[in-house]
Amino acid sequence: MATVIEINDPADPRLDDFRDLSTADRRPDRPGGRGLVIAEGVVVVERLLASPYPVRGLLGVRRRVEALDLSELDVPAYVTSAEVMASVVGFHLNRGVLAAADRAPAVDLDALTDTAQRLAVLEGVGDHENLGSIFRNAAALGVDGVILGPGCSDPLYRRSVRVSMGHVLRVPFATTDQWPATLNMLRQKGYTVAALTPHPSALHLADAGLRGRRVAVLLGSEGPGLTDEAIAAADLAVRIPMSSGVDSLNVATAGAVAFYALL
Amino acid sequence: MATVIEINDPADPRLDDFRDLSTADRRPDRPGGRGLVIAEGVVVVERLLASPYPVRGLLGVRRRVEALDLSELDVPAYVTSAEVMASVVGFHLNRGVLAAADRAPAVDLDALTDTAQRLAVLEGVGDHENLGSIFRNAAALGVDGVILGPGCSDPLYRRSVRVSMGHVLRVPFATTDQWPATLNMLRQKGYTVAALTPHPSALHLADAGLRGRRVAVLLGSEGPGLTDEAIAAADLAVRIPMSSGVDSLNVATAGAVAFYALL
Repeated sequence: MATVIEINDPADPRLDDFRDLSTADRRPDRPGGRGLVIAEGVVVVERLLASPYPVRGLLGVRRRVEALDLSELDVPAYVTSAEVMASVVGFHLNRGVLAAADRAPAVDLDALTDTAQRLAVLEGVGDHENLGSIFRNAAALGVDGVILGPGCSDPLYRRSVRVSMGHVLRVPFATTDQWPATLNMLRQKGYTVAALTPHPSALHLADAGLRGRRVAVLLGSEGPGLTDEAIAAADLAVRIPMSSGVDSLNVATAGAVAFYALL
Repeated sequence: MATVIEINDPADPRLDDFRDLSTADRRPDRPGGRGLVIAEGVVVVERLLASPYPVRGLLGVRRRVEALDLSELDVPAYVTSAEVMASVVGFHLNRGVLAAADRAPAVDLDALTDTAQRLAVLEGVGDHENLGSIFRNAAALGVDGVILGPGCSDPLYRRSVRVSMGHVLRVPFATTDQWPATLNMLRQKGYTVAALTPHPSALHLADAGLRGRRVAVLLGSEGPGLTDEAIAAADLAVRIPMSSGVDSLNVATAGAVAFYALL
């Protein structure tokens, strides 16, 4: 059972994990310069509590903290006012409860790719919101894991965690710098690697015969898109048919359409 | 040809259309309390210039203004420094060019629904980013128009215009307060009204036989979803098959998947 502790002094050092939240996810004093994992709001905090991430503590207004099942936890749950919370974190939060956790050990790329049936493989997805949305969509649409190639941001940044609705804490991900060699490895393991691109020469997604196969969907950054090297290392290029004169879809939205097409 | 005018004084009254941009889209002094339509960045400004919205003027740094084709325009294009721009609009803008326009006359609901083949019909979509994303996805995926039912925000708010990549200026939309009577009208006009809901009793989207039909996709707000009245007035309820224990997709993402399924 978590210990509920009331605190009224925003300078109390026990609240340091939550101090200046806008930089809490980037901490040069912590391993790799990467900071704590911060969950905001009841739903995301619940996902953190159910995840392998080692929870360090909670901070919230009483009503929100009491909405959580803290019976399995052995960490402090600090209760305070909305005003003190705002003063500690540095801005007004309308979600009323936070949790901080350490990072979990990285998932092994080999282990992930041995067992997953459907994967999202990202190249150059640097935008934290897009990254978070991709994890949310992956969780909803039956994608078993995410591989982060070169140029991707840290999906455990606070903004990504929030936009993912906490699913970045549930959908396993692994990072690779073997690029595009990782795509060859996936093909050797029996994945069909399908590069999603708006290029007109690509196959229509619905005609690519991906449904029911073991598939890795390769998604590139918005704007430049996938590199030629990545497309060349894929089994095939697929596209979502789009109206002419329109920019391509947002990468997370395009990913959702592709994940749906695999179902 | 637009008249290019260099201005170096941020207090110059000729820049008033662009002053304090965070509220420029809500102006009690203008019809209906609704303000100017603001386009940000070269791509969106180009879409505004190609739209029926009466452009009032442009403001930008020289390099961005010179990237635009202003030959058909008869309005001032104010050129200034990034610093003066920031001072006028109230924050730093990294897009370097803005255009302001008056609103175009509203699109007639009858006319829109007489001719469209595929429609998105929204109930309670109050979030400006979701609204913008829905227009972007509609434009990309062949949806001919959008109907805004009760509880929807103004899609011409600056944030919606930006997130839509300017497609809110291209995809026609009409507003209705006849609700859910508008859905009956659509059915009488031959549309299949398909309510998108995560409810397990709804038909799988791919099994609903919507492809190639005249369809109105009904989308509700994130969180509460569609009202029972709206679902009852639809021809059928359809769902995107989703993993259990996962929140539904973001409304704009779910819409994109549904629009794709109509193609």
